[in-house]
Amino acid sequence: MQDPLPAWRDGEAKAAIVDFVRRVCEAGGADFVRPEDRVATFDNDGTLWCEQPLQTQFYFGRERLEALVAQDPTLKKRQPFKAYYEHDLDTIKDLGKRGLFEVAAAVHAGMTEDAFDAHARDWLAHGKNPKLGRRFTDLIYRPQVELLAYLRANGFKTFIVSGGGIDLIRAFSEERYGVPRDQVVGSSVRTRVAEEGGRIELVKLAELGTFDDREVKVENIALHIGRRPILAFGNSDGDLAMMRYANTGPGPRLALLLHHDDADREFAYDREFRLSPLAGALDRAGELGFVVVSMSRDWAAVFPEPDA
Amino acid sequence: MQDPLPAWRDGEAKAAIVDFVRRVCEAGGADFVRPEDRVATFDNDGTLWCEQPLQTQFYFGRERLEALVAQDPTLKKRQPFKAYYEHDLDTIKDLGKRGLFEVAAAVHAGMTEDAFDAHARDWLAHGKNPKLGRRFTDLIYRPQVELLAYLRANGFKTFIVSGGGIDLIRAFSEERYGVPRDQVVGSSVRTRVAEEGGRIELVKLAELGTFDDREVKVENIALHIGRRPILAFGNSDGDLAMMRYANTGPGPRLALLLHHDDADREFAYDREFRLSPLAGALDRAGELGFVVVSMSRDWAAVFPEPDA
Repeated sequence: MQDPLPAWRDGEAKAAIVDFVRRVCEAGGADFVRPEDRVATFDNDGTLWCEQPLQTQFYFGRERLEALVAQDPTLKKRQPFKAYYEHDLDTIKDLGKRGLFEVAAAVHAGMTEDAFDAHARDWLAHGKNPKLGRRFTDLIYRPQVELLAYLRANGFKTFIVSGGGIDLIRAFSEERYGVPRDQVVGSSVRTRVAEEGGRIELVKLAELGTFDDREVKVENIALHIGRRPILAFGNSDGDLAMMRYANTGPGPRLALLLHHDDADREFAYDREFRLSPLAGALDRAGELGFVVVSMSRDWAAVFPEPDA
Repeated sequence: MQDPLPAWRDGEAKAAIVDFVRRVCEAGGADFVRPEDRVATFDNDGTLWCEQPLQTQFYFGRERLEALVAQDPTLKKRQPFKAYYEHDLDTIKDLGKRGLFEVAAAVHAGMTEDAFDAHARDWLAHGKNPKLGRRFTDLIYRPQVELLAYLRANGFKTFIVSGGGIDLIRAFSEERYGVPRDQVVGSSVRTRVAEEGGRIELVKLAELGTFDDREVKVENIALHIGRRPILAFGNSDGDLAMMRYANTGPGPRLALLLHHDDADREFAYDREFRLSPLAGALDRAGELGFVVVSMSRDWAAVFPEPDA
């Protein structure tokens, strides 16, 4: 049989995944799980795609901010926009991931959902990571794309549960991850219904709806998915609650934690990454039964091949 | 070819449905819609199952209230519980559908999501409609179950978007409608994460999260589904915004409105039903391009056959 996970090196992590999938799919086996209960949830930033030097949300918000500053130069003097505009990384890091999302939310307020989607697709078609020089959507992790497909081929329904903006992820999740828009959960702003020329539109407001991080990920899994996942994959303390939620239900469970320890092919960081640190989840991984995935050791490849 | 909709009588409504599905599925045709965009949303109460004499939510909440009154008799004296307890239909009707949901939310506060689901399944297994004498889950509409399956067989993803409690619907939507739990959108309460004996649990709070009615249905479609539906089916003014949202996008669109005009087999009501009236949506149906489905004329059968 062809290896469904060629970008994963043989080792404990890959063996744990393959063994878990085999057990939950084995009809009549002690660990069999009905297909409708095979729910897998994945964090996005740092778990499915690169989050360094800053999450894509930042670059996305900044480009829009530059367009707004051209109309209203006073924005340059007001925080948090000032830090964005001046590339003041220390202040941006202190704002945290929630701050990143709030700025992105503020700068897109007033757009309709349809206009936002077209804008996000357009931006993602050209936006590039400044350090790695590739498009953000080309910095998705090849082993994870394989894993998502492998799970679906085995009857799993795969979901993204991210602190990033839900509609930005939806603008590429189907094409790049094979995850439908309705299977994306993320941070969001409130919207209001408006009628424009006889057409019902939804307009984005500046008001935060949900910041989908830490315990809120669990609440939003219940709201959107309505089922406790049997597999969860994260890479930071923001994913700890989701991973424990998945891992502490009855029956077979698998919680995976990606450790960025690969300065050669990607980046090496954990507890010192202020925007989305990995500390408690790593320290408690053994106690909590998490499988730690080492990017340097467990992944044969990190990113997709460049286009031919 | 076997008729996929045998519980629908030949007529304008059935023809409109079959023609619409044929057009959106015809590869290369002018009205072709990619499968991922074939999103259909259905209201639940009065659209997929019977909502008379009161929505199922009421009976569900009342049974739980009776158990709580045994512990705290003062509840009997406080509104809105008093009206429930005394079967004071005038007051209950004045509370409206939102009031029904708020009482149901209040009486289930403190339960974990897992415990609620077990309780709801248990209740639905025996709970009966007092007027029709059949179980609530046997009062789903046979033509609609056929329509949901017909749409899915043609590449549609079917969603429920209801003013009723999301978790009560999830307790039977897979078995009875073939609609997975994550494809149910509804009213909900806030939850909080708790740890009980090393296990992460979600506990329901008394605080309303969303009351999924009217314009809020559109907002929640954007939040949960992330796509404008191309087909929407409702039966009251609470569905008007959702139907217009579906109906006013680009490309082929179908909005269907069920009219309860069948006092013999079910009930005949519209604008006088205080809990969930049908008035504006019916008056404007022609202008807005809605297809009105007459229960008496268009449906060959209403409910499933009784168990043999």
